[in-house]
Order: sequence, then structure tokens, then C-alpha cells
Amino acid sequence: MNRLPDTELVYIPGGTLITATPEEGRALAMAIARHTIHNIQPDLDPLKAGRKVYSANPDSLIAAGQVVAIEFQTIAAANNYWR
Amino acid sequence: MNRLPDTELVYIPGGTLITATPEEGRALAMAIARHTIHNIQPDLDPLKAGRKVYSANPDSLIAAGQVVAIEFQTIAAANNYWR
Amino acid sequence: MNRLPDTELVYIPGGTLITATPEEGRALAMAIARHTIHNIQPDLDPLKAGRKVYSANPDSLIAAGQVVAIEFQTIAAANNYWR
Amino acid sequence: MNRLPDTELVYIPGGTLITATPEEGRALAMAIARHTIHNIQPDLDPLKAGRKVYSANPDSLIAAGQVVAIEFQTIAAANNYWR
Amino acid sequence: MNRLPDTELVYIPGGTLITATPEEGRALAMAIARHTIHNIQPDLDPLKAGRKVYSANPDSLIAAGQVVAIEFQTIAAANNYWR
Amino acid sequence: MNRLPDTELVYIPGGTLITATPEEGRALAMAIARHTIHNIQPDLDPLKAGRKVYSANPDSLIAAGQVVAIEFQTIAAANNYWR
Repeated sequence: MNRLPDTELVYIPGGTLITATPEEGRALAMAIARHTIHNIQPDLDPLKAGRKVYSANPDSLIAAGQVVAIEFQTIAAANNYWR
Repeated sequence: MNRLPDTELVYIPGGTLITATPEEGRALAMAIARHTIHNIQPDLDPLKAGRKVYSANPDSLIAAGQVVAIEFQTIAAANNYWR
Repeated sequence: MNRLPDTELVYIPGGTLITATPEEGRALAMAIARHTIHNIQPDLDPLKAGRKVYSANPDSLIAAGQVVAIEFQTIAAANNYWR
Repeated sequence: MNRLPDTELVYIPGGTLITATPEEGRALAMAIARHTIHNIQPDLDPLKAGRKVYSANPDSLIAAGQVVAIEFQTIAAANNYWR
Repeated sequence: MNRLPDTELVYIPGGTLITATPEEGRALAMAIARHTIHNIQPDLDPLKAGRKVYSANPDSLIAAGQVVAIEFQTIAAANNYWR
Repeated sequence: MNRLPDTELVYIPGGTLITATPEEGRALAMAIARHTIHNIQPDLDPLKAGRKVYSANPDSLIAAGQVVAIEFQTIAAANNYWR
């Protein structure tokens, strides 16, 4: 098994949901979504193989976008929407 | 790789969730959803190819509409629903 | 391209999430969901072709119903649930 | 076309999200979900044909259950969870 | 038709969203999700046949888990998260 | 049947939604999601067989990630987002 490094297996990179800006909050949403997948499948080889498939499939891209949207709801609420 | 320009890769165009009107909030929801896809797949060629497929597939259109609906929930809350 | 009229491409018909009644709020949820699809695919021909397919497919109808449910969550919250 | 009666096409049966009990709230969630489908497809014949298909398909039943769950979130919030 | 007993067709078993503990709240979420399916399909025979299919299919199990997660969001909010 | 041990069938491991950190909250979200699947399918053999399938399928991984995202919304709200 070609195991991902531990830094890719942290659930919440940085350890907090609070960010300075919406842009950083969105980057965190993407990172959290990605690290969840890494924890379910920590072997880099099937991840790389899967990447080729889903990144060329519009339905998969839409589904991935939906997960990020849900993660971002949580982070945006945590930051009082950066009002 | 036919890489998208950097302006298409910003996560939150304009850098804020606050908008003057619901119409602008909805446009932002669509932009954020689109830019997420761009960040997952920054190569314009598979995006263009995928566009032909999903824009003619009602199930894909419904799924895309759902992602926008979720993004809009966040933006509408951020703006206190423009009450 | 058989382009939809501009009135079908407004994101938030009426420009507000506030409605007098739950019934009107639900109608707005359906309109917003539909106009999102129109903005992603503004050509009437593939929309009409897709309509025949999805309106006879129970899974597509369930998926469409889910999008309306999510839009309605936002509108109902905006209206303090018409309490 | 074998059109559904108008009573099946009202979006929010009863015209309010407020109910006396959680049981009635859940029944309303199911009715709203069903009436949305009716408004998208108001012809009884494809609905009846689709019913045979989806009610015997576990994935369709799970998807239908998800829509009801989302509608119920809105109704439960409207009723302050009947606390 | 091999109809489920009436106890399996109540929408909200116990008639309230309030529970003593998170564990009981989660059990209620599962019961509500299951009873929704029962109300859509009250014939035990297709339910039993479907059970064999979906309980051996990881995608179906993930989808079922998602419905429970959504029901639990509502119940957890109703109980102020048992803080 | 190769039944999972009782510890894998508790709905809410630890019995509370309150955690010290976002990292622990995310771990709890993953555990709750997993235990829900265990309760629907408590036989280890089909779970192990399914694991091979879904962990190599990007669409399944995205769907699993979505369930965790929804569970985490609840847990993050319960903890006032660890602000």
C-alpha cells in the first residue's frame, strides 16, 4: 500500500473552523472534504486512478462540488458569514 | 493542459458573501459552484467536453441545480435573507 | 439556438425571497429551481427534449422534488416560516 | 392527458406549515413532497406507471425518504420542533 | 398484499422529537426514516426483497446513512443538541 | 452471520455530541456515519465485500464524504463551532 503521509490524514487541517476570509474558508472546505476521502481510502494508488475517472466525468464533478458546498455551509456559519 | 485563467480559480469571486440583492446573491451562488468545479478540474478541455454531456442530460441539470440551491442557502443566510 | 426569453433567465423572479403566503413561497421555490436550470442550459430545444425524459422517470422526479425542497428551506426561513 | 384534480396540485395543502403535532407535521411533509411531483408531472398515467417502478426499487425508496426528511426539517423548524 | 401492521406506519414513533439522550435521538432518526419508507411502500413483500438488495450494496447503504443523518439533524436541533 | 461486536453497533459512540476540538468532532462524525451503516447491515461479511468495491470507486467515496459532511454539520452546531 502506497499510504498517504500523515499530514493528508488530519481531519481538520489547522485544527479550527475559523478563518480570516471567505476565500480561506472555502479552501478549508475543500481541504476537509479531500481529507475525509483520504481517511476512507488512505492508499494513494486507487485515489490517483479514481482521480482520472471522476475529474473527466461531469456528474462526478457536480457531486464533488456538492460536498464542498455542504462543508462550506458549516464553515461559513462558524465564521458568522464573515459579516 | 489548457489551464483556466486565475480569475476562474478564485474560490469566492469578490471575496465576500454579502451582496446587495437576492439576484446578485444567486449569481454569486452560481459562480462559487462553478469555480469549485474549476479548482477540481482546471483543464478547460475536459470541462468543455463535459459541458456538452451534462447540459443535455436532465438528471445532470437537476444535480447542478441542487448544488446551486445549497450554495444559495449559505449566501441567503449571510445576507439575513435581504429582509 | 432557440434561446429562452430573458424573463426566464432572471435568477430570482420578483427580486425578493419574501412572499405573502407559504403557497406563494413554494411557487417561488419552483420558479427559482427552474430558472437555475434555464441559466445553465438556455437553449429551449434540449430542455424540451429533456422534459420528456425526466417527467416520465420517477427517480428524476424525486430528484427534482429534492431541489425544490432545498430552495423552499431557504425561502421559508426568509419568511420566518410565515408564523 | 389524465390530469390530476386541482386539490392534488396545491403546493402547501392547508396553506400553512404550522401543525398541532409532529405526526401531523410529518404527514404534511409527505403531502408537500408528493404535490411537488404532481406539479412537475400532472398527468396521472405516467405517475401511476412510475409508482410501480420506484415503489419496488430500494434506491428509489431511499431517495424518496430523503426528500421527505428535507421537507420535514423545514416544517419542524417552523413549529419550533413542537417543544 | 402483505400489509405492515399499523405500528410500523406511524410517522413519528412516540409522537415527539424530544429524547433523553443522543443515543435515543439517533434510534428515533432511524425509526422515522424507516417508517417513511413503510408509508410509501406498506407491502412487506417488496420491502423484504429490496432489503436483500440494498443491504449488500455499499452505495445503497451510504444513501440510507445519508437519510438518517438528515433526520438526525432535525432531532438534534429539537433537543438543543442535548447540551 | 458474522455479527459485528456490540461496540460497533452503538449509535453515538461516547454518548454525546460534545467534543473538545474540531478534530475530535470530525472523528465522531465519521464514527456515527459508520455505525449507522453497521446497524443497517450488522453482518461483517457483506460489509467487507462492499468495502473493496466502494473504496475503489470515486463516486462512492464522494457520496461517503457527503454523509460525513452532513453528520459534521450537526456536531459542529452542537459545539457552537468550537469558537
